Amino acid sequence: MVPQWIIEKKRDGNILTDEEIRFFINGFTAGTIPDYQMAAMAMAIYLKGMTPEETAVLTDAMMRSGAMVDTSSVELPLVDKHSTGGIGDKVSIILAPLAACAGLAVPMISGRGLGITGGTLDKLESIPGFNVNLSEEAFIETVKTCGFSMIGQTGEIAPADKKLYALRDVTGTVASIPLITASIMCKKMAEGIDSLVLDVKYGAGAFMKTLDDATTLAESMVRVGKAMNKGMVALITDMNQPLGRTAGNALEIIESMECLQGQHADDDLMNITLALTAEMLVLGKTAATVEDAREILLGHIASGAAFAKFKEMAVLHGADVTALDDLGKLPKASIVTAYEAPAAGYLTRVDAESIGRAVLVLGGGRQKTDDVIDYAVGTSGLAKIGDQVAAGQPLVTVHANSPDKLAQAMTYIEKAFEIAPEPAAAPVPIVARITG
Amino acid sequence: MVPQWIIEKKRDGNILTDEEIRFFINGFTAGTIPDYQMAAMAMAIYLKGMTPEETAVLTDAMMRSGAMVDTSSVELPLVDKHSTGGIGDKVSIILAPLAACAGLAVPMISGRGLGITGGTLDKLESIPGFNVNLSEEAFIETVKTCGFSMIGQTGEIAPADKKLYALRDVTGTVASIPLITASIMCKKMAEGIDSLVLDVKYGAGAFMKTLDDATTLAESMVRVGKAMNKGMVALITDMNQPLGRTAGNALEIIESMECLQGQHADDDLMNITLALTAEMLVLGKTAATVEDAREILLGHIASGAAFAKFKEMAVLHGADVTALDDLGKLPKASIVTAYEAPAAGYLTRVDAESIGRAVLVLGGGRQKTDDVIDYAVGTSGLAKIGDQVAAGQPLVTVHANSPDKLAQAMTYIEKAFEIAPEPAAAPVPIVARITG
Repeated sequence: MVPQWIIEKKRDGNILTDEEIRFFINGFTAGTIPDYQMAAMAMAIYLKGMTPEETAVLTDAMMRSGAMVDTSSVELPLVDKHSTGGIGDKVSIILAPLAACAGLAVPMISGRGLGITGGTLDKLESIPGFNVNLSEEAFIETVKTCGFSMIGQTGEIAPADKKLYALRDVTGTVASIPLITASIMCKKMAEGIDSLVLDVKYGAGAFMKTLDDATTLAESMVRVGKAMNKGMVALITDMNQPLGRTAGNALEIIESMECLQGQHADDDLMNITLALTAEMLVLGKTAATVEDAREILLGHIASGAAFAKFKEMAVLHGADVTALDDLGKLPKASIVTAYEAPAAGYLTRVDAESIGRAVLVLGGGRQKTDDVIDYAVGTSGLAKIGDQVAAGQPLVTVHANSPDKLAQAMTYIEKAFEIAPEPAAAPVPIVARITG
Repeated sequence: MVPQWIIEKKRDGNILTDEEIRFFINGFTAGTIPDYQMAAMAMAIYLKGMTPEETAVLTDAMMRSGAMVDTSSVELPLVDKHSTGGIGDKVSIILAPLAACAGLAVPMISGRGLGITGGTLDKLESIPGFNVNLSEEAFIETVKTCGFSMIGQTGEIAPADKKLYALRDVTGTVASIPLITASIMCKKMAEGIDSLVLDVKYGAGAFMKTLDDATTLAESMVRVGKAMNKGMVALITDMNQPLGRTAGNALEIIESMECLQGQHADDDLMNITLALTAEMLVLGKTAATVEDAREILLGHIASGAAFAKFKEMAVLHGADVTALDDLGKLPKASIVTAYEAPAAGYLTRVDAESIGRAVLVLGGGRQKTDDVIDYAVGTSGLAKIGDQVAAGQPLVTVHANSPDKLAQAMTYIEKAFEIAPEPAAAPVPIVARITG
């Protein structure tokens, strides 16, 4: 096979064969197909698209370019969740122990934060002693012992994706549905799971700005997962405002632990978390319906089992869980100050991106991959769209460790809120459910 | 400026600015914009196109990436011709001395053959002693002395094109009208000419297979030349069958010298050559109309001036012109054999590509750029579409220097001809004239 003939075929809008896609990805991974041919191919895919079948083969080829987790010794249904990312998204930390309580195995490989989006691994590392770098053997053992484990990559998962992503970033080929689909799905499929629930965010603080784009991506990922014989459901959820009340690593752990203990029950965060976890239970056949699943999950929260399950996992990861029983022991910022409503009215806008930027400049995120994170900083007590507020009422509490960074963060915080005299509706947290 | 933002702009079908195009080409030439970004850009241009204005800026930027010929000391109108290439195309060798006889200066920088297409430089080198590698000073001096000169590149003309062409070849981005236009025109514009006549071939033996594609390319090149303030005319000419009666280097020199001496007056070759040269005279204002120009040119043939002009130039290039007065002194093949018509009837097909492949396997062309050419081999006495033939009548004479190569060539020769019982029309040599 000749690489440029395959490029030409896609350029002309034709459907590539299984063999052509695998030849291209294998060659690119091995270096026999150079970056410039992959760049031309990526642009051709961007502009001409791929069928669900082509996207599934692309995903499979990229998955097989590297290490895959061997979960064959796990006897429980293996189900995971993936989110396309947003501000204040700590769903995994609440969802995984809940799913484990309900009889699922959740082998969750998570990422670190970059830019305004936080990462589950950074949040977990704000718990003293928590080790996210387990070996694959210890990871599987932890999943078998307590039903879930949350780690970073072990072997080199999907090197084709790493190489392709870096190339897409500099060739104007990031925002392509088949390429995004393959990039996300090849890594999740390498986890050795049976089923996957997707949380596809849309809105001002999400990668997908419109409901249409989010729906298209969700449909593409669900189809690819199904083509790879996995159980798949996607929920499309709101990311116009941050999720929950906190953003920043230790602050999000605090909120998560409170959620696991039954607080914040009516929040968007718990609504979305319970909905996603319920879908996992149905896919894993430990509940017949999402309504049944929801009852089961609320029972595990009320009984204290969910919080206990998280602590059980944390101990296996080397954490000092006294900091979870006494959340005051988690990293704390030296400056805690409220941003107050400049006028009375109703919140019509709480901009996720502005809050994300504030946390980033406070030191709670990374501008570059080797930046060191300040776990203590961030925001808490966030007012949400639709809330009625009085003038001078705190809209958010800012946690900082330097007056300079606080001042910088405040320029973003001030831009985050809009107050109007007329009542405004709270956004619907879950706007669609995609099953194929 | 950020390269990927410019790629994204073109990817989304927007028009690039003068500055963006120059930034991209300058960066690519200097190596600060890597191949993979240029590859993505080339694919975006392929699929989204460029306006005539963008194409003109691209051409100008590529022209300015390297050396340009300084023709400021030449006082005559500087006019050249460019052909998109075909089998048996020896037009330049007849046209340039004719144009020089009529008072034009023709600073012709030509290429070598590759694949089935021959090159003017190779044809000239079949004349003993002919040196195509003049310095730029000697080149200009030759143009000033006798009105024309035909050489290979002197300085590095348009290195951006060389680099981009190699990249397009392996990224499926060759057949793009704006990229082809810029590639051809940047090199011709670097010759320092006032006007240019284009011979855009279409048909089975041409790069452009359809009249529509050839017309689109011709219009694009004419517009770009005009945007660069050059006089421009394009003729669209037939390349379904080879041009003239011969293909192969020395054989084409023989046919060209015969044409300059008034033979083959009614052939497609002389029709096309006279039409193109007449357009040059009108653009150079040494004739008022193409009809007047044609009369002038026929006069220079009849008087012997045209043939004498070619010999004058050949002497200045170091050639032994006794081989032009006695054409039997040119390289001659050891095996000369006719291919005879298998049946009586009318020729409906004389396939240019098959004849080109036959010449190539005889050793008359290059498979790779460093192959050595056998000047003597090729084909002559070609019958043309529309000819009535008797069974056993020679359709073409094959000149070979090895029985093995002859046998190989014959497999192509046999496929070149189709004979039908009903009369067939000869193709129209010139199908369109494009002026903007």
